[in-house]
Formats: sequence, C-alpha cells, structure tokens
Amino acid sequence: MISKNQIKLIQSLKQKKFRNEYQLFVAEGIKTITELLASHFDLHQLYVTESCNIDANNKAIISETELKKISFLKTPNKALAVFKMPEILPIDHYGLIVALDDVRDPGNLGTIIRLCDWFGIRDLVCSSETVDCYNPKVVQATMGSITRVNITYTNLEQVFSENDSQVFGAFMDGKNVYQYNLPQKGVLVLGNEANGISRSIERLVTERISIPRFGSLQATESLNVATATAILLSEFKRNSIEK
Amino acid sequence: MISKNQIKLIQSLKQKKFRNEYQLFVAEGIKTITELLASHFDLHQLYVTESCNIDANNKAIISETELKKISFLKTPNKALAVFKMPEILPIDHYGLIVALDDVRDPGNLGTIIRLCDWFGIRDLVCSSETVDCYNPKVVQATMGSITRVNITYTNLEQVFSENDSQVFGAFMDGKNVYQYNLPQKGVLVLGNEANGISRSIERLVTERISIPRFGSLQATESLNVATATAILLSEFKRNSIEK
Repeated sequence: MISKNQIKLIQSLKQKKFRNEYQLFVAEGIKTITELLASHFDLHQLYVTESCNIDANNKAIISETELKKISFLKTPNKALAVFKMPEILPIDHYGLIVALDDVRDPGNLGTIIRLCDWFGIRDLVCSSETVDCYNPKVVQATMGSITRVNITYTNLEQVFSENDSQVFGAFMDGKNVYQYNLPQKGVLVLGNEANGISRSIERLVTERISIPRFGSLQATESLNVATATAILLSEFKRNSIEK
Repeated sequence: MISKNQIKLIQSLKQKKFRNEYQLFVAEGIKTITELLASHFDLHQLYVTESCNIDANNKAIISETELKKISFLKTPNKALAVFKMPEILPIDHYGLIVALDDVRDPGNLGTIIRLCDWFGIRDLVCSSETVDCYNPKVVQATMGSITRVNITYTNLEQVFSENDSQVFGAFMDGKNVYQYNLPQKGVLVLGNEANGISRSIERLVTERISIPRFGSLQATESLNVATATAILLSEFKRNSIEK
C-alpha cells in the first residue's frame, strides 16, 4: 500500500527544487537499489512488488499498478526506493579532481561518475548549471557508482582558487595529451556539450590539453564529453603507474 | 507536400527489414543531414520546412504538421532526409579493425562509430546481432561520422580467419593494456553490454586485454562498452605515435 501523500512526495522528487528541499532522491532498478542499500547511503523508503526479493527496513509491498503510478520509467522494474542525499565531504585538494563546467546531459554525467569511480577519483566538482547528480536518469546511469564519488556543486572559480596545483582543461586546440608528463594531483576541467569550457573558467586553466585526432581532415569535429573524460582520466592514471 | 506513399515509405524505414529491402535510411537534424549531403552518400529525398535553408536536388517543402507525421523524433527538427545506403567496401586487413560482438545499444554504437572516425579506423565490423548502424538513433548519434567509417555486418569468425594478425579482446581479467606494446595492425573486439564477448569469439582472441581499475575494492564492476572502446583506441593510437 502507498498513501496519496507518499505518491505526491515521490512525484515531486522529479524536480531538483523538491529534491533539495527534502534532501531526498529516487532510485529505480534492482541493481541500482541493491548497490545503494549496500553503501553508506541511508534509505528513506523502499517500495517493491511482491515478486521482488530485495530486503530492507522501511519496506512496503505495493502492486504493479501502484508501481506504475510512482515510477519515472516507461517500464517500471519491480522496485523503487527513496534515499536520503548523503553528506558532502570537504574537497580533498591533494588528489586529482574532476571539474565539470556546465555538463547538461544526464547520460554524460552518469558515465563520468562511473569513470571517476573506476579511476579512483574521490572528488567530482560541478558548476551549479551542471545537471543534478540526483536527477533520476543520472542515478540510473551511474549503476551505483554515485555512492563512491564525493560530488560537490559549487562555484568552480572558488574551488580553483583554493587549489594550488595545475588546472588542466580539455580544448580542441590544446597540447597533445600523450606528450604530457601528467601529475597525480591537480584539476581536470571538462566543458559543456555544445560550447566547451566557458570564458570565465578558461582564464583559470593553466594547461590546455587535447586528444589528438587521427582521422581524415574531414573527420568528426569533437569527441563527446564523456568519451573525452574516459581517455583523459586513462592518461592521468597511466602516467601515475609509470612513475 | 508529401504523398501518402512517401509517408508510408518513411515510416517503414523505422524497421531494419524495410531499410535493407529498399537500401534506404532516414537522417534527421540539420547538422547530420548537412554532413551526409557533403559526403559520398547519395540523397534519395529531402523534406524541409519553410524556415530551413538546407539546399539539395530532390528537395520538397513540407509543413510543420507533415514533418511531425514523418519524424521519428519527439521534437522534429526542421528537416528529414532519406538517404541511399552506401556501397560497402572490402575490409582492409592491413590496418587496425574494430569488431563488435553483439553490441545492442544504439547510443553505444553511435559513440563507437564517432570514435572510429576520430581515431582514423577505416573498418568497423559488426556481428549480425549488433544493432543496425542505419537505425535512426545510431545515425543521429554518429553526427555524420557514419559517412567516414566502412561498416560491415558479417560473421566475425570469418573475418578473423581471413586476418593473420593478433585479435585483441577486452576482458575484465585481461592483461593491463598500459603494459602492452600495441601493434598498428590487428583486430580489437568489444562484446555485448551485459554478457561481454561470446564464447565462440573468445576462442579466437589471441590477446586478452583490460583497462586497470584504480578505485576501491567495492568499485564499479565494468566500464560501459563505448567508454572502454574510447580508452583502448586511444592506447592503440598512442602506441602508434610513440613508435
């Protein structure tokens, strides 16, 4: 059973405004919910259909029809959970930090969070215009990685001013990243899907890097921001091994 | 104006069966259509609304309502074009070939085609179960790169048997790719999103490679196939420069 108020609460969590007000977000899909339950994230309420065997305190059995009513997915998947947003830890300026300047696509942010997890990046810092990491599509795309990366939404300029290491920015006309001796400490900034890194952030970039293109002259104009992040993080980490 | 028969033809092109029968496919969005028109691909018919200034032979002006009727997108974008499928060239076994064993997600295939274009990969070979590259979502995601990569759907085992170089396969338990001396010639195989490389193809892999994970023990289980392709192609090409 699910009450009208609960339905109303869940539906409100589609919007960032209410997620921030209640400090709650929605996760769907058995894999994602199981990973979140096993993490330090706190469950607010779990809703499952009878055929689903996930266990937790605060669990309510609901019908398929009720799940359809509350799910954000076209094809609801046996369970929906409401979690509390975790506490954000202070940024660790002694590691490699990934900074996103206005990344808008939920799929791209989800992939980047997964990559940060894979490559052991503790801190992902996002400009306030970057898509919210508790957007249901982002939570879904991270496959649980969201529990292992400390994500801070803030003014990037301020973070850079508190960090005394190099700021690497991905630009089309940057220096070939393969020729760099990349450090284990610093900031890597990636920009917006259409416009790249904004002017105000560009001024603070100390190292302009780029991924060389090998195709013909007529080749693709740019790499997607998530694939560029994959390649650049791989380069930073490869350099850290070889030192 | 658009006739009933033309509407019927376009709608049928949502399905692979009819795309193959007519050897035609649909492209939408001004950027994609412009790139395709500038390529060696042959236009069958272009449909544009009055506000759109793309020019071509075989151009018909249609109303917004007509565009809505034929578009595959939720938000149609001023133009829709039907192109002829290009001639597929014989595979060049002297370069680095990318092979996909049952990649199912259109977004992933689109990203991989873009990556092949970026890294100058001439041949992308796909198992017959791999999502069709003329699927409208794939065409959209390639941003025009589809015109610069020779994509062959065939039996992968046969391609490998005709190729006398190493076959690299991406596996979770493979050898650290950073420690490899990667050749400029060979095959790189990537597997299905959920199941990886199939048993029959695994038998033909001569080098099992993997991207090292740097995160905590509890970290993400695997990288998405498109991000893994990005990192591995970057490694192959970096090795080719450094030789």
